Amino acid sequence: MNAEGYFREKIVKEDIGEEILSFAAEIYPICRSITGNGVRETLRAIGAHVPLEIHEVPTGTAVFDWVIPQEWNIRGAYIKNERGEKIVDFSRSNLHVMSFSVPVRQHMSLTELKQHVYTLPDQPDLIPYRTSYYAENWAFCMPHRLLESLRDETYEVVIDSHLQDGHLTYGEYLHRGRTEEEFLLSAHVCHPSLANDNCSGVALLTQLAKHMEGMQTRYSYRFLFAPGTIGAITWLARNEQRSQRIKHGLVVSMVGDGGGPTYKKSRRGDARIDRAMAQTLRHSGLAPSILDFSPYGYDERQYCSPGFNLPVGLFQRSRFGTIPHYHTSADNLDFIAPPHLAVSYRLIAEAIEIIENDAIYRNTMPKCEPQLGRRGLYGMIGGDKDAAAANMAMLWILNLSDGMHSLLDIAERANLPFAVIQRTAQILLHKGLLVTSEIAVDEPGVSGDMRP
Amino acid sequence: MNAEGYFREKIVKEDIGEEILSFAAEIYPICRSITGNGVRETLRAIGAHVPLEIHEVPTGTAVFDWVIPQEWNIRGAYIKNERGEKIVDFSRSNLHVMSFSVPVRQHMSLTELKQHVYTLPDQPDLIPYRTSYYAENWAFCMPHRLLESLRDETYEVVIDSHLQDGHLTYGEYLHRGRTEEEFLLSAHVCHPSLANDNCSGVALLTQLAKHMEGMQTRYSYRFLFAPGTIGAITWLARNEQRSQRIKHGLVVSMVGDGGGPTYKKSRRGDARIDRAMAQTLRHSGLAPSILDFSPYGYDERQYCSPGFNLPVGLFQRSRFGTIPHYHTSADNLDFIAPPHLAVSYRLIAEAIEIIENDAIYRNTMPKCEPQLGRRGLYGMIGGDKDAAAANMAMLWILNLSDGMHSLLDIAERANLPFAVIQRTAQILLHKGLLVTSEIAVDEPGVSGDMRP
Amino acid sequence: MNAEGYFREKIVKEDIGEEILSFAAEIYPICRSITGNGVRETLRAIGAHVPLEIHEVPTGTAVFDWVIPQEWNIRGAYIKNERGEKIVDFSRSNLHVMSFSVPVRQHMSLTELKQHVYTLPDQPDLIPYRTSYYAENWAFCMPHRLLESLRDETYEVVIDSHLQDGHLTYGEYLHRGRTEEEFLLSAHVCHPSLANDNCSGVALLTQLAKHMEGMQTRYSYRFLFAPGTIGAITWLARNEQRSQRIKHGLVVSMVGDGGGPTYKKSRRGDARIDRAMAQTLRHSGLAPSILDFSPYGYDERQYCSPGFNLPVGLFQRSRFGTIPHYHTSADNLDFIAPPHLAVSYRLIAEAIEIIENDAIYRNTMPKCEPQLGRRGLYGMIGGDKDAAAANMAMLWILNLSDGMHSLLDIAERANLPFAVIQRTAQILLHKGLLVTSEIAVDEPGVSGDMRP
Repeated sequence: MNAEGYFREKIVKEDIGEEILSFAAEIYPICRSITGNGVRETLRAIGAHVPLEIHEVPTGTAVFDWVIPQEWNIRGAYIKNERGEKIVDFSRSNLHVMSFSVPVRQHMSLTELKQHVYTLPDQPDLIPYRTSYYAENWAFCMPHRLLESLRDETYEVVIDSHLQDGHLTYGEYLHRGRTEEEFLLSAHVCHPSLANDNCSGVALLTQLAKHMEGMQTRYSYRFLFAPGTIGAITWLARNEQRSQRIKHGLVVSMVGDGGGPTYKKSRRGDARIDRAMAQTLRHSGLAPSILDFSPYGYDERQYCSPGFNLPVGLFQRSRFGTIPHYHTSADNLDFIAPPHLAVSYRLIAEAIEIIENDAIYRNTMPKCEPQLGRRGLYGMIGGDKDAAAANMAMLWILNLSDGMHSLLDIAERANLPFAVIQRTAQILLHKGLLVTSEIAVDEPGVSGDMRP
Repeated sequence: MNAEGYFREKIVKEDIGEEILSFAAEIYPICRSITGNGVRETLRAIGAHVPLEIHEVPTGTAVFDWVIPQEWNIRGAYIKNERGEKIVDFSRSNLHVMSFSVPVRQHMSLTELKQHVYTLPDQPDLIPYRTSYYAENWAFCMPHRLLESLRDETYEVVIDSHLQDGHLTYGEYLHRGRTEEEFLLSAHVCHPSLANDNCSGVALLTQLAKHMEGMQTRYSYRFLFAPGTIGAITWLARNEQRSQRIKHGLVVSMVGDGGGPTYKKSRRGDARIDRAMAQTLRHSGLAPSILDFSPYGYDERQYCSPGFNLPVGLFQRSRFGTIPHYHTSADNLDFIAPPHLAVSYRLIAEAIEIIENDAIYRNTMPKCEPQLGRRGLYGMIGGDKDAAAANMAMLWILNLSDGMHSLLDIAERANLPFAVIQRTAQILLHKGLLVTSEIAVDEPGVSGDMRP
Repeated sequence: MNAEGYFREKIVKEDIGEEILSFAAEIYPICRSITGNGVRETLRAIGAHVPLEIHEVPTGTAVFDWVIPQEWNIRGAYIKNERGEKIVDFSRSNLHVMSFSVPVRQHMSLTELKQHVYTLPDQPDLIPYRTSYYAENWAFCMPHRLLESLRDETYEVVIDSHLQDGHLTYGEYLHRGRTEEEFLLSAHVCHPSLANDNCSGVALLTQLAKHMEGMQTRYSYRFLFAPGTIGAITWLARNEQRSQRIKHGLVVSMVGDGGGPTYKKSRRGDARIDRAMAQTLRHSGLAPSILDFSPYGYDERQYCSPGFNLPVGLFQRSRFGTIPHYHTSADNLDFIAPPHLAVSYRLIAEAIEIIENDAIYRNTMPKCEPQLGRRGLYGMIGGDKDAAAANMAMLWILNLSDGMHSLLDIAERANLPFAVIQRTAQILLHKGLLVTSEIAVDEPGVSGDMRP
C-alpha cells in the first residue's frame, strides 16, 4: 500500500453502500444478546465473507473483574389476552422481550403484568430496547399506546427462554501485514434487531475485512466482532500481552445514518488515529464533530481503561443517545442507507490510508528552495495570481521535511488533505528531492510531539 | 474534614448572611485608617469572636522598603459658616475628613477652603473617600452639590486630629490543622465607614474563623486582619520564613454586594487555589469573572510580589473600581445584604473544601472497567437513555485514577462539580475500587502539571 | 540607542512619507528583471543615498540547486498593425513585454500573435505582469479590451531584447552596530514598473538605511537589495556562514498602500522579530493581520528554508495577491501614498526599537512593592479611581522583573505598548529599583521561553 489512493481504488467499490446494507439486512432479524445462538449465527454469517476465528469462552470464566455469564437463548414469547389474541409476539419483533429475561409461563392480572412492561411514553409508537444481563428479571417491551389500550383482564404471559451454563462467543479475523503491529477494528455484536446499532458497524467491518484480503499492508488489521463490554473485556483478558501490539484502533458503531460524522478521540487525545480521523473528517466536506474522550460510550471504554490506555477511538455517524431512534424499534432497516454506509466506509478507509502512509521524509536540498521549474514541477510562467495554490503542497512538504515532521504533521500544518500531501510527496521522492528519514513515525517521542 | 460537605454542613449556617451583616454593621461606624485607635477598636470587636493575637509595631520600624508611619487619630472635625452652622461635620460621616489629615483650626475664605475640598462632580450627592498617608496634607470630602451651594464667606475650619509616634496595629488568628502548611485568609482593616470595602470582608472572615473552631483540618488557617499595603508588608517583613508555609491563600474584600463573583488569580496563575476557585465559581450557577493576575488591586500585590510569589488570589463580588459605589459614601450598609454575604461565604467554604479534600487515588482495577452493577453501583437495567449522566462521575474517576490525576484534575476534565467527584470517590474508596496513592497532591511537579 | 523614542526622534522625520515616495518615483520607470541593467540602474540610485556594496555574480555560477541565469536586457518592443500603428509599445509601459522574453522580429497573423499574448479578462483595462525566467519564450501583455479590438490582419512583432551571458547583480549595505549580530532587511529589486511591489519597499529601506547612518546600535543592520528568489538564494549561497549571524530579519515589500498592516511570521513562529512585530502592530491603532508562516511569499521562503530556518518575517501593508492591483499596471505611483509609506516606516522603526532595547532587568526590591510615593513615582493622593491606569506599567515591570522576563515579555503580559514599558523601565533603572540582569535576552533558551 505505497501508492496514494490504493484504498480508494482497490477497496472502495462503487456499490459498497449497497453491499454493506445487504449484509446488514441479512443479520438484522437475528435475536442477538451478549451470549447465545444469536451471536453464533451472526458470526457464521460474517464467516461466509472472511475466515473468522470463533472463540467460545465457558460460563463462569473470570475475565478481570467480571465472570462470563450464562448463555441466554429464546425460542419465543407472547402475551395473550382472554380472547386468545397474542397482543405481543416475540416473533414479530425480538425487541419485545427484554434481553436475558428468565423464562416465565404464567397467568396474571394487568396490574401484575405492568410490573414487567417497558414503554416509551414520549415515543408511544415505538418499542424500547432493554436488557438485564446481570440481574435476574424478565420483562416485555411494547409501544406505550398498546399498553394503554390493554383491558383489565387476565393475561397469559409466556417467555420461552433458557439461561444456562454455556459459552460467550466472539469472532476475530487478522489480516496480516508486513509487521506484527496491529490496527484494531472492533464492532459489538450483542444488539438484536437494531439496524444502525450495530448491524451497520458489523456489516461495514465485514466488507472492509473482505476487501482487504490480498492487500499488502504495513500494519496487521485485527477485526473483532464481540458482544459489547463483556466481549471486549474477555478479549483483553485473553490477549493482555497481545493488546500491546495495537498501535491504532477504531470502535465502529452506528455508521448507517446520515448524521455526523462523529469521532470521539482515544483517552490519549493525540494518538495518531485521533489525528488521522480528525484530518479525514475535517477534509470530508461534511460537518464533523470531533469530541474529546469521555469514559461513556462503546468498547473504547475498555480499550481506553487506564490499565490499557490503548490508542482506540470511536467512529459513528450520529452520536449515540442523541437521536430519537436510539435503542428503539425505529432503528430499523429504513434508518440506514447505502450512501451513508458508503461515506462511513470511505472515511475509515481514508484514515487507514493515512496511518499506512504516514512517514517522515527529509528534503535533500534543505538550503533554499530547490529549482522546481527545472524539474518540471512548477508553473513555467511566473506572476500568475492563481499559481500559488497549486504549488502549496510541494512548498509545504519541502519546507517541513526537516526530519522532524511526518506527512500527517505537514498536512495538519498546511491545512491540506493528507492525500494531496502524500501524492505530492511521492512525486518529490521520485524526483530525488525527498529521501526516507532514518526516524520512523512510530518511534517513541516522535509521533504527536513533532507538530509545529 | 474527610467527608464531603463537611464545610457546608458544619459551618454554613442558615443565617450566616445575617450573622456576617450584623458584625459588619457593628464595625461599620468606626473611623479606621492605616494606624490608630480605629484599627484597635475593630480588632477588639473581632477578638470578641475569635482569640485574635494583636501586634503593635512602633512608628519608625523599617519593613522592607517602607517605614511604619505615625499613628493618626481624630476626635472630630467640622466646617462652620458665618451663621455658626456646621455645614460639614465629621460626626455625621467619617468620610468627610481625608484620612491622615493633619490638624487644622483656621478661618478662611471659600476660595482658600476649596483648595482643600474633594468632591465627585459626576456623583454630586456622594462623599468621596480620600487618603493622604505619606504626604502631609489635610482636606475635607463632601457632596459636590454642597460645595456648589456654599456662599463666598469666611468659614471656620477645624480638624481635631493627631499625627504622632505610636504603632501600627494588626491582628491574626491561627486555626491549627494537622500540618503546619498554611492557608492564608487576609482582609484589610484600614478603610473607615465603607460597608462593602471592607467591613464585609472583615466580617466574613471573622465568622469563618469562628465557625472553624474545633474543626479538624489538613491545613492550618491563618486569618490576617491588617491595614492595606503597609499592614501586609509589615506581616511579610516580620514573617519572611513563615510565609513559605503558605500553600494557598485568598485576599477577601467587597464580598457583600450582588455582583460577580470575581476571582483574580495569583501571579502563578495555575496554583491550586486558582484552580479551586475557578472550579467553585464555574459551578456556582452565577456568572463569575475569573481574571488573570495583574499587579494592581489589594494585598495580593504584596503576597504576589516577585520575592514572595505566594499562591494567593483575590476574591470579590463586584470587581473593585467597576461600580459607582466604590470609594464613596454610597458604599454603606444598604449596599450589602445577607444573601450576597452568604453566597460569598459559601463559595469560599467550597474552595476550602476542595483544597482540603483534593487527593490522588488509584483505581485498584485499572484493566477494563470493574463490574459496577455487581457492587450495587450501577443501574441494573441497561439501555436506558438517561442512565449515562448519573454514572459519569464514577466512570471519570475510575478512568483517570491512574495515580497521576487528583480529584480536582478529574473534576476539571469531567466538567463536574468537585463535590460530586469527591463524594463519588468516597464511595469507590469504600467499595475498594480506589486506594490512596503514594503520591501526594502537594508534591513538587505533581499539582497543576498533571492535568490531562 | 539606549533612550526610548530614539528611532522616532532621530529617524522618523515629518516628511519621511514624501521622501520615500520621491525615491520610489525615481526608480519606478526602470525596467528591472532578475538580471540586467535595470537592476544595476536601481542599485546605482540607491547608492546615491547609502554606500552600497555592489556584487556581480557571473552567469552559470551554481548557487545551491540553482544556476545564475543569463543577463536579460531590452531596448524596445512593439506590435505594429498593417496601418503602421504601434498598437503596443514597450516605451509606454515596460509591463507590455513578458520579462525575459527572447528576441523576436516577425510578421504574423492575429491567431499566431494570440499564442503570445497575456491579458486579464476580468480586469480588461489593465496590463498584467508576467515573467518566464527559466523557460525560453516570449510574450506581450496588454489590456484585454485592446486584444479584443484587434482586427484579423498581419502584425509586425518586435522584441529587441538580449539574453546573453553576463551577471546577476545585487547590492548590500551594512550598518555596523556594537555587535556582529545582524538584523537583515531585505527587499526584492527585480520587478519593473510596479510601484508598490516593490519600489515602495526598496525606497523605504533606502531611506531607513540613510537615516540610520551615524546611529549607535546594538545590532548590525544588513540592507539587502537583490532580485527575488535567485538573488536571496545567491546571497545565502555566498554567505552561508555569515547568515548564522542573522538574529532578526524582515523582508519588506508592498509597503505603500493603505491596507493591512500585515506581518507573516518566520518559520520559527515565536522568534523575537515575530513578537516585536506583533507587539508593534497590535498597538498601532490599525487593524493588523498577523499570519502564521507559510512557504509561499517573498524571499522569506529562502531565509526560512529548513536548512537555514532564519528568524525572518515578511512585512507588508496589503497581503500580496489579495488586492486587484497586484501584478498589474494598476500598481502604479497613484497606488502608493506618503501617509501609508510613513506609517510603514514608523512600524518598522518601532519593531527595531523593540529589538534594540529589549532586555532583562531585575527588581532590586523584590519583596513587597517598593514605596513608589517616597520616590515621587506615585500619585500622592490615594483612593482616586483613575490613578490605577497610569501606574500599571510601573507595577507590571516591578512585578515581573524577576530575572526571567524581558521588557517585551512584560509588554506582552501587561498588554501595554513596548515604548511605555521601556520608558518606564528607564525611570525605574534611574531610581535604582531595577538593575540589569546578568542574563541576556539573547541567551539560548531565554528568549521566547520566558513568557508567562
